[in-house]
Amino acid sequence: MKKVVVIGGGTGNFVVLKGLKKYQLDLTAIVSMADDGGSTGILRDELGVLPPGDVRQCLVALSNSSRLMRSLMNYRFENGGLGGHSFGNLLLSALEKVTGSFEKAVEEAGKILYIKGKVIPVTTHQVRLRMVLNNRRILEGEKEIYLSHEIEKGYDTIYLEPYPKVNPRVIEEIANADLVVLGPGGLHTSLIPNLLVEGVSEAICKSAAKKVFVLNLMNRKGQTTGFKASHYLNEIVRFLGRDVFDHILINSQKAPKELIDVYAKEGEAVENDLDQARVVTADLLGPIAETTGRDLLKRNLIRHDSNKLAQELMKIVDHL
Amino acid sequence: MKKVVVIGGGTGNFVVLKGLKKYQLDLTAIVSMADDGGSTGILRDELGVLPPGDVRQCLVALSNSSRLMRSLMNYRFENGGLGGHSFGNLLLSALEKVTGSFEKAVEEAGKILYIKGKVIPVTTHQVRLRMVLNNRRILEGEKEIYLSHEIEKGYDTIYLEPYPKVNPRVIEEIANADLVVLGPGGLHTSLIPNLLVEGVSEAICKSAAKKVFVLNLMNRKGQTTGFKASHYLNEIVRFLGRDVFDHILINSQKAPKELIDVYAKEGEAVENDLDQARVVTADLLGPIAETTGRDLLKRNLIRHDSNKLAQELMKIVDHL
Repeated sequence: MKKVVVIGGGTGNFVVLKGLKKYQLDLTAIVSMADDGGSTGILRDELGVLPPGDVRQCLVALSNSSRLMRSLMNYRFENGGLGGHSFGNLLLSALEKVTGSFEKAVEEAGKILYIKGKVIPVTTHQVRLRMVLNNRRILEGEKEIYLSHEIEKGYDTIYLEPYPKVNPRVIEEIANADLVVLGPGGLHTSLIPNLLVEGVSEAICKSAAKKVFVLNLMNRKGQTTGFKASHYLNEIVRFLGRDVFDHILINSQKAPKELIDVYAKEGEAVENDLDQARVVTADLLGPIAETTGRDLLKRNLIRHDSNKLAQELMKIVDHL
Repeated sequence: MKKVVVIGGGTGNFVVLKGLKKYQLDLTAIVSMADDGGSTGILRDELGVLPPGDVRQCLVALSNSSRLMRSLMNYRFENGGLGGHSFGNLLLSALEKVTGSFEKAVEEAGKILYIKGKVIPVTTHQVRLRMVLNNRRILEGEKEIYLSHEIEKGYDTIYLEPYPKVNPRVIEEIANADLVVLGPGGLHTSLIPNLLVEGVSEAICKSAAKKVFVLNLMNRKGQTTGFKASHYLNEIVRFLGRDVFDHILINSQKAPKELIDVYAKEGEAVENDLDQARVVTADLLGPIAETTGRDLLKRNLIRHDSNKLAQELMKIVDHL
């Protein structure tokens, strides 16, 4: 069975994993630990736990439990002191408290949800994402970076504070992988934060696995305004150290005009400016109606189709 | 397989069920829906859900899942907006929201916890417990009644507002039971509230099952001060309509003096003043060290031993 390692965080990971789950694969999700917004941010601040939100999405994507259990994990309380918390986040945080370990919590939640594959936090240290802008202003935390409109003016660097040790299982998984998939997902908030953990970029570069970079569909205004495929690739390569990608997967299908208009405030479609043999273009556009959890709907009106994306990735796997 | 129906709420139910779970029995827990204190009260007020606390304790008592899962259910968050909530309560409330039904929520939680037997809310209507004292003051809610020190001066009546329809499954379970066990548990806050639901007392009186009343170990100061066994029995009979008990189970073992001293502020041991063939006295006293969840520890330093209690109940079952 081929071993596929998917690296990212948030909705991007969810879509890739959900699609690949249907195939006979040994699947591992490596998840960024930089999230500090919303329910996750409150849990970090109030309970001192590691960020559960992105892990929860991966667990749900890989879950073979009932639809009810998956709805339960994404259910958000609406009122009072619980308002805004998704149940799955509370499950992970309570399990972390009871077991004394976030990794153990993820493992136990995986059992409850009958997941196929593994979900591994990239580090088990408490970290905060920081970005130093070209104007010397410092953005503190993933949420502030996610919401900033200043990034397009350029940034000096982005780093994790404190510089975290990698989870050793991550190095092992990447070393033994047949295919490593990076993306799609927030460039500065979901993808790069994995590469900022000690040893991760080196492990990817050293691994004999084929490497695929899945490009985002849309730019984010104020962050990646005007970015083309080459810009995304250059940013990733900066933190990876080398351009090691064997394949770059880019959507070729235009979203319906009415959706593009709705999205205009958020950003425009990413154009492909790469003319290379390794670039694979295909219709990867997801249906509008397919929603899984309220947060996905709100954040990603235009997103990848998990089945189409998995089909393209499986073409690569089948040639390994 | 003999069918045993246990009626109560809170810690008392927990102890009986935990002991009986180890025997080959068809077990059903019928649970009061009057709780409105602590985490349960907040969830009722903020989310409009039915009270999960007592149901959670029954589910944990009947659970065949891992020790970790049982610890998780009783885990209480310590800080922030989640402070004080037990995870199991949040699970039941989230399931109620996702399924749209508290009964369905209890059923699904039962599956997650691999429970042996059934847990059935006595009613699925939102009710509040009210007590009219002899001085015409009205105590509102289970929590206020539980904390009141005025009850010993006498009360006129106690009732549920609005007068709730019984859950039809409760009537069916009682009708088909071989043994019905009432108690131990808070007299006004866990036991009587079940009898205040339309049709429950009639169903118990009509059932061909043998009926056992398990007496509390300790009085509650300001509530049942100076109560002896006959006082407890008389109160229950008032709301049951008839004295239908075939057996009355009373502890004969004195608690260690140092514990009695610690407990003195709370109340004194219940004395047996019944001299009847149906009275069974036995050592039913639990060990001090046996604790299951922080709330049980705090509330019940002196409590029944689940194994000893189950052994005495099984002697009755074996003679059926």
